[in-house]
Amino acid sequence: MRINKSEAAALLLKEDDVLILTHKNPDGDTLGSGYALCRALLKLGKKARVECFDPIPKKYDYMFEGLDVIEFEPSYIVAVDVADTKLLGEGFEKLYGNNIDLCIDHHSSNIMYAKKTCLYEEDAATAETIYSIICNLGVEIDEGMASCIYTGLSTDTGCFRYSNASSKTYRIASEMIELGVNNGAINSLMFESKSLSQLRLLKLSIEGMKLYFDNKCAIVTLTQKMFEDSGAHENESETISSLARQVEGVLVGATLRERPDGTYKVSVRTHAPVDAAKICSKMNGGGHKRAAGCEINLPLEQATQVLLNHIESGIKEAYEE
Amino acid sequence: MRINKSEAAALLLKEDDVLILTHKNPDGDTLGSGYALCRALLKLGKKARVECFDPIPKKYDYMFEGLDVIEFEPSYIVAVDVADTKLLGEGFEKLYGNNIDLCIDHHSSNIMYAKKTCLYEEDAATAETIYSIICNLGVEIDEGMASCIYTGLSTDTGCFRYSNASSKTYRIASEMIELGVNNGAINSLMFESKSLSQLRLLKLSIEGMKLYFDNKCAIVTLTQKMFEDSGAHENESETISSLARQVEGVLVGATLRERPDGTYKVSVRTHAPVDAAKICSKMNGGGHKRAAGCEINLPLEQATQVLLNHIESGIKEAYEE
Repeated sequence: MRINKSEAAALLLKEDDVLILTHKNPDGDTLGSGYALCRALLKLGKKARVECFDPIPKKYDYMFEGLDVIEFEPSYIVAVDVADTKLLGEGFEKLYGNNIDLCIDHHSSNIMYAKKTCLYEEDAATAETIYSIICNLGVEIDEGMASCIYTGLSTDTGCFRYSNASSKTYRIASEMIELGVNNGAINSLMFESKSLSQLRLLKLSIEGMKLYFDNKCAIVTLTQKMFEDSGAHENESETISSLARQVEGVLVGATLRERPDGTYKVSVRTHAPVDAAKICSKMNGGGHKRAAGCEINLPLEQATQVLLNHIESGIKEAYEE
Repeated sequence: MRINKSEAAALLLKEDDVLILTHKNPDGDTLGSGYALCRALLKLGKKARVECFDPIPKKYDYMFEGLDVIEFEPSYIVAVDVADTKLLGEGFEKLYGNNIDLCIDHHSSNIMYAKKTCLYEEDAATAETIYSIICNLGVEIDEGMASCIYTGLSTDTGCFRYSNASSKTYRIASEMIELGVNNGAINSLMFESKSLSQLRLLKLSIEGMKLYFDNKCAIVTLTQKMFEDSGAHENESETISSLARQVEGVLVGATLRERPDGTYKVSVRTHAPVDAAKICSKMNGGGHKRAAGCEINLPLEQATQVLLNHIESGIKEAYEE
C-alpha cells in the first residue's frame, strides 16, 4: 500500500523500537537517509538504530558520530532507499525480507515489497523524502541530521550536477547549510579525495574504453586484473561509473565490473531520451531513467554482447517514441 | 572607491550605452555575469553589449541566444569578474585599461583599477553579486538571465562542490531553476562532456603526476608534447586543474601548463588551511584562498623548483599561523 509523507510520519510517531535498514554496498543516500531518520526518532525519545548488511566505509563515520548503539528488540522495521529486498544483502533478505513494515524510497523500480511504501520518484534522493518526513514528525532538524540529509542529496545528484537535482533539492541543501553543514568538507570526502590506486584504475579505464554505434555508446570494463594492477578496491570504483557517459556525443555509458566469482555487475548511465532503467530491466535490473544497474552471469565477451544488444534497442526505442 | 551592490545598481540605472568587458580565457562566471547584466540592461531599454578579448567557446552560445549585437559608442565601461587590467587581454588592456568606470568582482586579489569597485569577496561567484545588483535594478529575472547566473554559480563552485558555495549560493541556484533553468543540461555542457582527446590528456596527466613533501603536494605538468600527443586543445585542459588536489592527503595541487612560447601558466588549488592566493602572489599572481594562478617564465625544471619552494613555504606558514 502506497502512503504519502505525512502518513509515513504519522505511522512513525506511533512506533517505538525502530530498526532502520539500508541497502547493501551502502552509499551516501541510503546511509544519510537512515541516520537522519534515526537521529530524528532518537530526538523524539524513541529507540532506533541503523543496520547495514555490508561494512560502512569509513568516510561516512560522521553520520553516526555521538550516537550510541542501542540494544533493543525491534518492533517496527523501516527500509530506506531499498528498491528490492534483494538489495538488503543475502543475510538480511532472509532475516527481514518478509517483515518490512515501511519502505521509504525514490526508485521507480521499487517492487513494493513492504507493508507500506512511501515512494516519491520525483525526489532526487531518498534523503529529500526523509527531510519532509522529519518536518512532518515535528522534529527540529539539527546539524547532525542536516549533514546526513545534505550527504544524501549531494551523492545522489553527482554533487548537484545531474538533471534530477530540482529547485527543491537546492532549496533543502541551502537550508541544511544554514543549519551548520560543512558542505565543502563533506563534498571533499565524497567526491574529491581519490587514492593513488583509484587514479591508476581511472587511467586503465580510459585506456580500455571502447566506443560503439557511431560513438553513441561507450563501455568501460573493470576486470579483476585491473583491480590487482592498480591496487584499487572494488568500492573505490564507484566514480568510474560516470566516466563512459562523459564522452562527447555518448548517449549510453556502461561499466562492467568483474566480481571475484567471475560474474559482472553492470552500471548504465544515459543522457535523455535514453532510459537506463528500461535497458537494465531487460537484464533483471532496475534503477532510474538516467542511472540504473543489473548483473550478468556470463563470460566477458558474451556479457558485453548481451549488454550491447539491449543498449542498441534502448537507443532505438528512445528515438521511436 | 569601493561601493556596495545597491550603489552599483544606482550608478547603472543612470547610464546608457554600456560596454561590459569579461576577462580573457573566458569562463562561465565572467561570461554568465556579463550576459546576465547585459540582458538586464537591455530589458531596461538601455544599449549594452558584452566584449571579450578571446573567442568565446561554443558551449557558452546559449548565453547570448536571441540577443542582437548592438552597435553603439560606449559611454560607460563595466568589467565583470576581472581582478586586474592584465586579465582583460593585451589588446583590451591598452584600449580600455585606464577607463573602466565600474568593476564588479569577487576576487580578493582585485587591484582596484576601476573608478568604482563593487567587490564582494564572500560571494562564491561574481554572478552572485550580479544577481543582487539585478534585483536592485528592479529588473524581473527571466530564464535567459537565470541561465547565465546559474552558470556562473555552478562553474565557480566546481558545480556546488567547493567550500565557497554558501547557503545563499544554493538558494539563488534554487530560485534560478524555479525560473526555468535547465540545470542538468548546463552542467552536462560545463562538466560532463569530455572529448576523447581530453580523456587522453587526463590519462597522460595521471601518468606524469608527481608527489612531494610526504605526499602533501601533487604536481601535474602539461607539456606542448602532451597536447600534441593527445590532440587536446589548451582550453580543454581546465578540468585537469582540479586533479592534483584530489589525491588523498594532498594539501596543495598544482598544474603547470606549457604555452607555445615555452612559458608556464600555473594553477594552484589547496585544501584548508593552505592559502593558494598567498602562494601565487609571491610569483606575481593571485586569486582565491583555495584556487589561484600565476605565470612562470623559466625552463620546466627551474619553474617546478620555484613553484615547489613557494608551495613548501605556503604549507609551513599555514601551520604556523
